[in-house]
Amino acid sequence: MTVLKVGLAGLGTVGGGTWKVCEKNSDEIIRKAGRKVKIVAVAEPARNKFLSLGENGISYFSDAMELIEVPEIDVIVELIGGDTFAKMLVLKALKNGKHVVTANKALLAKHGNEIFEVAEKNRVTVGFEAAVAGGIPILKVLREGLTANSIDWVAGIINGTSNYVLSEMEDRGISFDQALKEAQDLGFAESDPTLDIEGNDSAHKLSLLASMAFGIKINLDKILVSGIKDLDLKEVIYAKKLGYKIKSLGIARRTDSCLELRVHSTLIPENCLMANVNGAMNAVMVKGNSVGNTLYYGQGAGAEPTASAVVADLVDIARNSIGNVSARVPALSYQSNHIRDLNILEDGLIKSGFYIRLRVLDRAGVLADVTRCLSNEDISIESFFQKKPREDENSTDVVLLTHECLGKNILDSIKAIKLVKNVIDDPIILRVESLK
Amino acid sequence: MTVLKVGLAGLGTVGGGTWKVCEKNSDEIIRKAGRKVKIVAVAEPARNKFLSLGENGISYFSDAMELIEVPEIDVIVELIGGDTFAKMLVLKALKNGKHVVTANKALLAKHGNEIFEVAEKNRVTVGFEAAVAGGIPILKVLREGLTANSIDWVAGIINGTSNYVLSEMEDRGISFDQALKEAQDLGFAESDPTLDIEGNDSAHKLSLLASMAFGIKINLDKILVSGIKDLDLKEVIYAKKLGYKIKSLGIARRTDSCLELRVHSTLIPENCLMANVNGAMNAVMVKGNSVGNTLYYGQGAGAEPTASAVVADLVDIARNSIGNVSARVPALSYQSNHIRDLNILEDGLIKSGFYIRLRVLDRAGVLADVTRCLSNEDISIESFFQKKPREDENSTDVVLLTHECLGKNILDSIKAIKLVKNVIDDPIILRVESLK
Repeated sequence: MTVLKVGLAGLGTVGGGTWKVCEKNSDEIIRKAGRKVKIVAVAEPARNKFLSLGENGISYFSDAMELIEVPEIDVIVELIGGDTFAKMLVLKALKNGKHVVTANKALLAKHGNEIFEVAEKNRVTVGFEAAVAGGIPILKVLREGLTANSIDWVAGIINGTSNYVLSEMEDRGISFDQALKEAQDLGFAESDPTLDIEGNDSAHKLSLLASMAFGIKINLDKILVSGIKDLDLKEVIYAKKLGYKIKSLGIARRTDSCLELRVHSTLIPENCLMANVNGAMNAVMVKGNSVGNTLYYGQGAGAEPTASAVVADLVDIARNSIGNVSARVPALSYQSNHIRDLNILEDGLIKSGFYIRLRVLDRAGVLADVTRCLSNEDISIESFFQKKPREDENSTDVVLLTHECLGKNILDSIKAIKLVKNVIDDPIILRVESLK
Repeated sequence: MTVLKVGLAGLGTVGGGTWKVCEKNSDEIIRKAGRKVKIVAVAEPARNKFLSLGENGISYFSDAMELIEVPEIDVIVELIGGDTFAKMLVLKALKNGKHVVTANKALLAKHGNEIFEVAEKNRVTVGFEAAVAGGIPILKVLREGLTANSIDWVAGIINGTSNYVLSEMEDRGISFDQALKEAQDLGFAESDPTLDIEGNDSAHKLSLLASMAFGIKINLDKILVSGIKDLDLKEVIYAKKLGYKIKSLGIARRTDSCLELRVHSTLIPENCLMANVNGAMNAVMVKGNSVGNTLYYGQGAGAEPTASAVVADLVDIARNSIGNVSARVPALSYQSNHIRDLNILEDGLIKSGFYIRLRVLDRAGVLADVTRCLSNEDISIESFFQKKPREDENSTDVVLLTHECLGKNILDSIKAIKLVKNVIDDPIILRVESLK
């Protein structure tokens, strides 16, 4: 059996990990793939990174575009990142008849529809397991493991940085700012953490998960995104008091013929498995209409965990090409002629429970006024508590959990609540999900 | 694209579920497989079960062997159970060039080596995702999702009945007998629960997991098996006091060039995710040398969850045959010419922590004598406690947790401990695993 020849573009964290995994597990991979998966060329502007591999007989290029011109290369592994050069590289590789494996979620979230179309036209594969939830083979699960199901929803902790920060806030009662700073010092957060803490990284991943789960085009722009950066420690503490934890979830849920696509801080019951996914770990729950609830857990980032997914895609390609069937499994799980549009719901039309925190002056009657604002919108209250004000305070926090209702009803009731006498400051609102 | 024609043998729980899933998700399956997956014939001795499907145009046979003679059938789904007739059926189907999908763990644990060999010779597929952990696509994960890894260990809660009984014992402080009886009344346990509570069902599944994880032949006979049937509620209570939960785990672990294969009640730290897998749910942890720890969770039994796995295998076959590559992915993950023997360790050579419960007369000096027996075997104690005897008791329980040591050293120390003055009754011993 011939060798699968790989051109590796980018020797950063994941590129270096991919090199290492291919080396150390080379025998294992042959045993499973039935052929050798070999990196025959590397492209990396920083030549010293290539030299540090200490490898002879591997072609070196500073410019990844040159990889594409090497006729013997079967697969380009794109681990450069960004979405301009990487897009050109990937499209050109596919048009040259080369398979592509990438960990680039931003690229696929923005240009995946075009990229997958070009791949199909050229009868080559785009593997992107590493783009979502690192080492967890969640795309394989959706694309092949749960094919018997119509998926009801997918909900994931798919940003390790956010989960690390939230876990620290909860475990140690520290503020968002302090938790983020520590995460940066420990290398769990980037020096510019914007993509993570504003929810956009989760949105990139969610766009891919949703497409595979529901057989729709990738819809990054339609995702409702809010990150964790404005979360007050108070919410974490009050949620705990109510038996919940706050997790930043990416949620894609089918309701009738519509779809919810959203990333936001969410209260979930503390006794569910997802609530126990701590630190930088990732987990994705999938509810199928046959299988019920399932959960997949592992490291969502890091050199070797992510490389585990990159190399699994290479093994898939190696096995596919034994039978020369590059298109055996469609990239987005559904056959491309079966990809549909679903109406994606706006925030106001999405149902869930809600957590509301109000700051009120410590006067009689305010709670009666607030609950009237809710009942006027047909919102019923599941539980509430009012914090006893400290002696030096004349205002206090009131926290309410509502039963399931529409987002727009909450917004309307909040408008009214803001006008209630003795309610001060803007109310804080978070969604609550039972994940059942 | 042509229809994939399926002959369904057996209309019991999973057979009925398979019928239902194929019906209700028919459109979804076409969208993913690119072709229709259609049950064209059913074999079931109880004709009324067939009639209750209310289906015209489906061939009916009372004898499953007749299915094999139907030329148009591409795949036989064996959901009859047992390992004599089912073995004949499966082997004959494969020799007739038909693919087989089965949920029959006992069959494959006992005869899988022969069955997979016949399948490969005849260039057909045996799908058996449903045989392990029901709806959780754990075989897909091992066979395709984690191919980049050399697997360090697999540990699973793979018997829902046992986990249900253990969860009830822990949650409600009831005895094994009471928990089992309630589980039977509720349908979570069979009227003859032997296979479940003696650990053999887990052993069947573990033999398949281990084979796929490590690239070895299926070794059912070499698994060390002990069930939960002799577990005293005391162990559950004392474990909790020490910060552990007791789960019945199937464990396959590679140590150097040897392999541990074992099913037994195990103490695991209460704060790890596996400890929070409750009721009849299943979960499998896999540690790979690149990906690190991963976990897969879902329903391990039941009509539709199991059918979810059966039908996913059918979709795989449907997709495979588009390119006519029945052997794209080897049944046991590793190419058959790469399956090796690993030396399987006997109990005494397996390392872990241990939980020891002793019944002792309430006299001074006994603990000193016991700890000397342990230190004589180089066993160090991590923690212990001694229960205060009730006023009407002259004996009490002493519980010790040891650091990691060999099973044979524990057995030798226990021999000595039994001779210690004032130690009464036989000591209870359980293994402790950190799952790290």
